[in-house]
Amino acid sequence: MVAHAGVRNRPIGVFDSGVGGMTVLHELLVALPHEDFLYLGDTARFPYGDRTREELQAFCAEIGEELVARGAKLLVIACNSATAAALSDLQERFASAGIDVIGVVTPESQAAVVATHTGRVGLLATPATVGSAAYERAIASADAHVRLTSVACPDLAPIIQNGFPFDEQVMATVRGYCRPLAEAQVDTVILGCTHYPLVRPMLQRMLGPRVTLIAPGAAVARRVECALEARGLSSDRATEGDYRFLCTGDPEVFRAIGTRFMQMPLTSVEQVELLPAGSRSADLVAGES
Amino acid sequence: MVAHAGVRNRPIGVFDSGVGGMTVLHELLVALPHEDFLYLGDTARFPYGDRTREELQAFCAEIGEELVARGAKLLVIACNSATAAALSDLQERFASAGIDVIGVVTPESQAAVVATHTGRVGLLATPATVGSAAYERAIASADAHVRLTSVACPDLAPIIQNGFPFDEQVMATVRGYCRPLAEAQVDTVILGCTHYPLVRPMLQRMLGPRVTLIAPGAAVARRVECALEARGLSSDRATEGDYRFLCTGDPEVFRAIGTRFMQMPLTSVEQVELLPAGSRSADLVAGES
Repeated sequence: MVAHAGVRNRPIGVFDSGVGGMTVLHELLVALPHEDFLYLGDTARFPYGDRTREELQAFCAEIGEELVARGAKLLVIACNSATAAALSDLQERFASAGIDVIGVVTPESQAAVVATHTGRVGLLATPATVGSAAYERAIASADAHVRLTSVACPDLAPIIQNGFPFDEQVMATVRGYCRPLAEAQVDTVILGCTHYPLVRPMLQRMLGPRVTLIAPGAAVARRVECALEARGLSSDRATEGDYRFLCTGDPEVFRAIGTRFMQMPLTSVEQVELLPAGSRSADLVAGES
Repeated sequence: MVAHAGVRNRPIGVFDSGVGGMTVLHELLVALPHEDFLYLGDTARFPYGDRTREELQAFCAEIGEELVARGAKLLVIACNSATAAALSDLQERFASAGIDVIGVVTPESQAAVVATHTGRVGLLATPATVGSAAYERAIASADAHVRLTSVACPDLAPIIQNGFPFDEQVMATVRGYCRPLAEAQVDTVILGCTHYPLVRPMLQRMLGPRVTLIAPGAAVARRVECALEARGLSSDRATEGDYRFLCTGDPEVFRAIGTRFMQMPLTSVEQVELLPAGSRSADLVAGES
């Protein structure tokens, strides 16, 4: 399939509940330096980890439509809770427009199955992600002999999003999350929330030197590259891509924490008000014509 | 050799000009969880990157004696400028006391030679390190066919030590450092200052997906493990080790930036006044008897 030249150079849309998805965005910027990116952090409704499946499906539909209305040629759900709840829903929603939607659960599960030697894999994730059993299904589908031990970490994403004060209380909380994984003698741990790679050093120390930590960024970046190639949608420019940021909460807070996490200036941050899903299907069609 | 039980459980001494050496300390904590550590940041005399060889040899002798007087059973120079200037000097100084001194240049150079496919390796380092030609010698000794392209980065360690504001000016400065490496078409880049792994995401984006970044932490940790084993000096405890911090500058500034970089609370930070080297050789002997 050969796409219209204008479509090739549209941005890739990436979204998360906050700044955690920037760990995925970083890997995308490394792997695809000539692509433009449009990142949306739904900071006004952070965290997603305690939301219901229905809420997350509604949020993802609104965000997906916003990003597509702004020209996104592909969507990345850079949030595990949202992927677990809404990936197939979003894929169906945008299939007719030829817009692929890529999530973080399957690439991460496959990487964990490849990494483990003992067949004992651990998962640290939000209550919503653990409750969805999405990783159980993805792991079982990748290798039925791998046993998954899941731990819900209700406080970890908020600790990170709020700039993680590394005090004794935080350390004790995180140690408590790691304990069941040590008891289960896992040799591989899936960081099942895109915020968690930001505290990889702390987690690696607590889990010990013989545990491999799996983060989704690099595997997701390869999937995006393949998906763009398959549709003839890779950027044909040789210059460095552009990146813009949207958020639903305070843009200055987002800029400050995002600049630190991304290690680059977030020059363009715009606060956006999301519309109910379906209220502008005309834009969508126009965008794709 | 079987060491006295008390010696086995003494701390490992680790030092740097500032907080950069914490990237090495982190890998040591992961690899050797039962060891105690005593870290000294010579923050009052930061940065080391513009110091002469003679100055660095004097600083390292003072710090080495301080750490040994406080019981260190092995020393790690977690600073490339100091390693390049003073490693052999410090090794000679403590040889008779049976105290090994391990630096960062050789482990990193060997890792780079193993990683490169094209034989074109780059080095980002301080002016002192580049001027010493220590990496040229270490690389040539590891593989005479590998070509090294070195770039002195006078501003990068200070930018990181001061909490790196990721603004456009910083980005332009760092881009300028990376440009000669892109022109030389290197496929492997040595992060030749222990501060630089703290901005690995930024450097990976600027250097591109096909460049492998080499940091010394993991290779240094393996050398320390081997050296302790060889002397029968590994800790024989099963409990988690203890870590304490010393600095020559403001301890509160050190605690704040160190807590963020280490991702753990620095509960014990002591400001220390270093004595001229040689002024307490009696303590040294007493410590080893």
